[in-house]
Amino acid sequence: MLIILSAIAAPLSARDNNLMPQPAKLVEREGRLAIDASFSVGFTGYREVRLENAARCLLRRLEKQTGIPMPEEVEPDASRATLVIDCAGPGEAVQSVRENESYKLEVAANRARITAPTPVGVLRGIETFLQWIELDAQGFGAGAVLIEDNPRFPWRGLMIDVCRHWMPLPVIKRNLDAMAALKLNVFHWHLSDDQGFRIESKKFPRLHEMGSDGKCFTQEQVREVIDYARDRGIRVVPEFDMPGHTTAWFVGYPTLASAPGPYSIERKWGIFDPTMDPTKEELYPFLDDFIGEMAALFPDEYFHIGGDEVSGKQWDSSPSIQAFMRDHGMKSNHDLQAYFNQRVLKIVQIHGKKMVGWDEILHPELPKDIVVQSWRGQESLASAARQGYMGILSFGYYLDHIRPTSFHYANDPMEGATADLTAAEQARILGGEACMWVEYVTPENIDSRIWPRNAAIAERLWSPQAVKDVDSMYRRLDIVGRKLDRLGVTHRSSYPLMLERLTDGRPTEPLRKLADLLEPVKFYAREQSRDYTSLTPLNRLVDTTRPESHAARKFAKLLENFRANKGEIHEKLTSWRDNSAALVPEMKRSSLLQEAVPLAEDVSALATSGLKALDYLEKGGVAPRSWVDAQSDLLTRAAKPRAELLIMIVPSIRKLVEMAGQGSH
Amino acid sequence: MLIILSAIAAPLSARDNNLMPQPAKLVEREGRLAIDASFSVGFTGYREVRLENAARCLLRRLEKQTGIPMPEEVEPDASRATLVIDCAGPGEAVQSVRENESYKLEVAANRARITAPTPVGVLRGIETFLQWIELDAQGFGAGAVLIEDNPRFPWRGLMIDVCRHWMPLPVIKRNLDAMAALKLNVFHWHLSDDQGFRIESKKFPRLHEMGSDGKCFTQEQVREVIDYARDRGIRVVPEFDMPGHTTAWFVGYPTLASAPGPYSIERKWGIFDPTMDPTKEELYPFLDDFIGEMAALFPDEYFHIGGDEVSGKQWDSSPSIQAFMRDHGMKSNHDLQAYFNQRVLKIVQIHGKKMVGWDEILHPELPKDIVVQSWRGQESLASAARQGYMGILSFGYYLDHIRPTSFHYANDPMEGATADLTAAEQARILGGEACMWVEYVTPENIDSRIWPRNAAIAERLWSPQAVKDVDSMYRRLDIVGRKLDRLGVTHRSSYPLMLERLTDGRPTEPLRKLADLLEPVKFYAREQSRDYTSLTPLNRLVDTTRPESHAARKFAKLLENFRANKGEIHEKLTSWRDNSAALVPEMKRSSLLQEAVPLAEDVSALATSGLKALDYLEKGGVAPRSWVDAQSDLLTRAAKPRAELLIMIVPSIRKLVEMAGQGSH
Repeated sequence: MLIILSAIAAPLSARDNNLMPQPAKLVEREGRLAIDASFSVGFTGYREVRLENAARCLLRRLEKQTGIPMPEEVEPDASRATLVIDCAGPGEAVQSVRENESYKLEVAANRARITAPTPVGVLRGIETFLQWIELDAQGFGAGAVLIEDNPRFPWRGLMIDVCRHWMPLPVIKRNLDAMAALKLNVFHWHLSDDQGFRIESKKFPRLHEMGSDGKCFTQEQVREVIDYARDRGIRVVPEFDMPGHTTAWFVGYPTLASAPGPYSIERKWGIFDPTMDPTKEELYPFLDDFIGEMAALFPDEYFHIGGDEVSGKQWDSSPSIQAFMRDHGMKSNHDLQAYFNQRVLKIVQIHGKKMVGWDEILHPELPKDIVVQSWRGQESLASAARQGYMGILSFGYYLDHIRPTSFHYANDPMEGATADLTAAEQARILGGEACMWVEYVTPENIDSRIWPRNAAIAERLWSPQAVKDVDSMYRRLDIVGRKLDRLGVTHRSSYPLMLERLTDGRPTEPLRKLADLLEPVKFYAREQSRDYTSLTPLNRLVDTTRPESHAARKFAKLLENFRANKGEIHEKLTSWRDNSAALVPEMKRSSLLQEAVPLAEDVSALATSGLKALDYLEKGGVAPRSWVDAQSDLLTRAAKPRAELLIMIVPSIRKLVEMAGQGSH
Repeated sequence: MLIILSAIAAPLSARDNNLMPQPAKLVEREGRLAIDASFSVGFTGYREVRLENAARCLLRRLEKQTGIPMPEEVEPDASRATLVIDCAGPGEAVQSVRENESYKLEVAANRARITAPTPVGVLRGIETFLQWIELDAQGFGAGAVLIEDNPRFPWRGLMIDVCRHWMPLPVIKRNLDAMAALKLNVFHWHLSDDQGFRIESKKFPRLHEMGSDGKCFTQEQVREVIDYARDRGIRVVPEFDMPGHTTAWFVGYPTLASAPGPYSIERKWGIFDPTMDPTKEELYPFLDDFIGEMAALFPDEYFHIGGDEVSGKQWDSSPSIQAFMRDHGMKSNHDLQAYFNQRVLKIVQIHGKKMVGWDEILHPELPKDIVVQSWRGQESLASAARQGYMGILSFGYYLDHIRPTSFHYANDPMEGATADLTAAEQARILGGEACMWVEYVTPENIDSRIWPRNAAIAERLWSPQAVKDVDSMYRRLDIVGRKLDRLGVTHRSSYPLMLERLTDGRPTEPLRKLADLLEPVKFYAREQSRDYTSLTPLNRLVDTTRPESHAARKFAKLLENFRANKGEIHEKLTSWRDNSAALVPEMKRSSLLQEAVPLAEDVSALATSGLKALDYLEKGGVAPRSWVDAQSDLLTRAAKPRAELLIMIVPSIRKLVEMAGQGSH
């Protein structure tokens, strides 16, 4: 057995299985386990409530997946069970970054077995088992296999900002379900920011009462989320961003700030001046009380203090703060923030926690058990690791930047500057976290901003480094994305609803055909285009359109083998060309769609141009220079963002036009 | 004003508005009320918790509908509110069949107002207001209008069977939401049957403990449903079917039956022998206790005792029952059931309720305040009404028969035998109820079995009798159907998920194109085709396919104006012809789809045949007799059910072939 295993320990990215993330080791064997109405699950070894819940949840999910009624309860006699779960022991009382998440899944013709040292390992194995089941000509079944799996990184997270737009409990729960399905293990909960203080504080109730417009999590809901996450093998790390990004704190407690109030909840996006005053001694007992309250609520060993984007203006303009800095020999605001961090660190430690913060917190005097979350990149991580600090990568995983999945997939915590670290330094790179900042995101479209792209990040952080075949990733992403739907994630189901709002309930097929070719503008381009606030409706085509145009991506793929795909290319171009005739008049009748009329018209023009190019190419001639030049106006215009949207087939049409101009293909 | 009103009191079915059900009276006026972020709602007149909930719910739904953030709370100063709700008084303490549901909705350019005598009337007005809002070139808005509306019938119900397949709480709640959106006002809850006893009894716990496989509603959940329904202006009428359809009672209490036990929960469908023994005196104290418990739980004045489909076999073969009948001069089982009903009636009355039952309960000795629910039809209703009994129509509203919407829409409680009744007799026809029996229905597809077809039944029961334009109905059904999605009803969102199960997560477009042309077999044809039980997986194409093929219906419409639609006809036929090439091999790989391969092949053959016919017709010639005859094999075969499915374009293709054979069009 071990011999076979070592033989296939090579990366599996090219393998034609549907698993995501790909496991560390997999050997297919002869045979197939039928999954039918006789299915049952039983336990040998250690049992606990979390495992019982997991087994019941597995039965219900298998019922949904297959449509076959499954037993309500676990089979008491494990020797008769189809799937045997064999857990060695309880794992850690509070799941930590050191939790053993490994598992072994063996499927034989008559039986399957998940063996794991901890319940969390069992949970990971169950997700693999569910993904491994397929429908074929014989019915539902699982091919005989041996999978031995464990994660590459111990910290695989998703941060959700619930401040800039309020994200109620169901959003959190369904995303925890999806995280578990992708074997992610840290939910980083960004709970306070300028635009909202989103958690009940019993000690300082004005924080949430005055800082949240009534939109915050009660402590009971927080405990519910923590339990829900624990049942799914997910840690919950709360973040209270300080000393900047704290406007919402000051609405109820203005004296914490570095300038006199009053303050009101911030409605705009950006970096704002209100900042805690690190020189006020009364700040620290407040934070001690508050952090104590939150540290008792959140069991995780880590506590995130944010620490990013301190504007410094309130500090610069405060005579008392300037005097304090002079008195203490501080040369810069960074020094003052380091002083603040040191004070906060002691409070965090007193309450039994380790500190996490963004790049900016890094300062040589901090202890080595802190974790730096890097939005700056591998350079910054490598530098921290060399100084002995642990780090996680978020640079390259900002889902709100609306980049293609392949971009995130290629972004490896251990490539670039970190690749040259020593093994000991590399061990300090704990993993990464995708970040979902929600300036332009609502409960309606947050799932489509996160999923399925985040599944590729999950694979990057779980699977062996060599698993990086992009075509395989996209193929599996499509399958995993569809299956996420069954967990209640709305990344697909919300799209038709949002399209129907734009057409006011009329058929959406033509609009969808257009929207499928568009993507929202990238990075921070939206905030340049108009004055957004947290009250601006996010109900336009840019909010509806999904982050990655798979239609455009697949079209570009077709062009890579132009000769073989001529028919399909022609068909697609024709359908795009003809789409705008009926669509444009409809769009003009909708105030929400008028702004996108030029996009619809240009898609049609681009398709016409592409068809003409195809015509030249098929006739074997060369397109006249004058025609090629005439297309460039269109291509230039069509490449520019309008209505905060981009037409994603522009590069492909440009390529077709150039091919026609060269007359060779 | 009144003059204008009477001028348009004529039916509105032809009007081009999107309301469903159509209101009794509607006058459009000049102007338009913009619905934007400044929207607010306030009260003048009577207020109560139900109204406050309704207003908050309106704000949240308007937010979903428009994507515009709406205020969290009601505007305290009604003079500043965009929508003013003016309710005259509290209505009935417990909503009854006599509740006044009328309302007036006035929309002017600066303000809208809902005026109603009761909170239930306000609820109806809110639904109309939400439907009346449209998106146009100026944004979301409501055209100035005066609507005066009230229902044609006071009893407009939906029965859901939760016994044959278990339907958990979320299914009930989302269907109550949809019912309210369509102004339905009675949820008839079929809670016990041979296959399950679905409610907790504290007095006789073996009823649900032994009769439900653990799948039943707790009394707390029942109260939750009743409150939820009340907030939506819906009465909840429980049904406990007796003396037949009672196998599940006897699992825990075998001595109630007419033959010795033991009994087990029935897994099959049909009419079964186990029947209560009306001659046992100890039955009645049991029913007295049980009905007393349920009568206290359900506040509605009506209590449904079922009474349908008594097999009679247990009675026939019991010497003691036969002796009892002889002793009491009973000539038939119907007499014995009448005796039973009389006894049960007294119990129902003692507990303050009026009795409802199916046709079979009708017997001259019953008091005139009972209600007969007729599955037999207008004849039966008319006969009851002549005898002085009240009735509701369910014949023609059986959603499980899988009939087209137009069929249900045409079925009027006051047409046929009931049309000739006197006004006094007609007043006894209280309305109707759609019935959702669930032999072949699961939580996954129940919504698609009910909606949107049931919206047309709702219109039949609410709107003036003359509102019956089928084209208008289908146009509005499409819009209302899409909007129901936002309420969480899964009638559309479940379809892609079920299709994806069949393709095992691969793209579903070709399968969907096929499924869109199919319908499940009608009436009780499924039970003839194989031995179903309640444990049979309902995960096949027949379970996935929706009850009405709108694609086939629209294609038939195109043929009505063949000359004008030739292009579109050709396009559709081509796309159907070409669909099977890639689809059939995929289907062969899926054990769930193999049975439907002949359907895919025949759709392709039918389309080929249609294209050929088109070809003859376009060339102006006559198709040779030999060709026409050759098509008839295909048409005959394709018209037959296979895999419990029907191809719905067969009649249209037959028509095309015949047209080609005649050579004139």
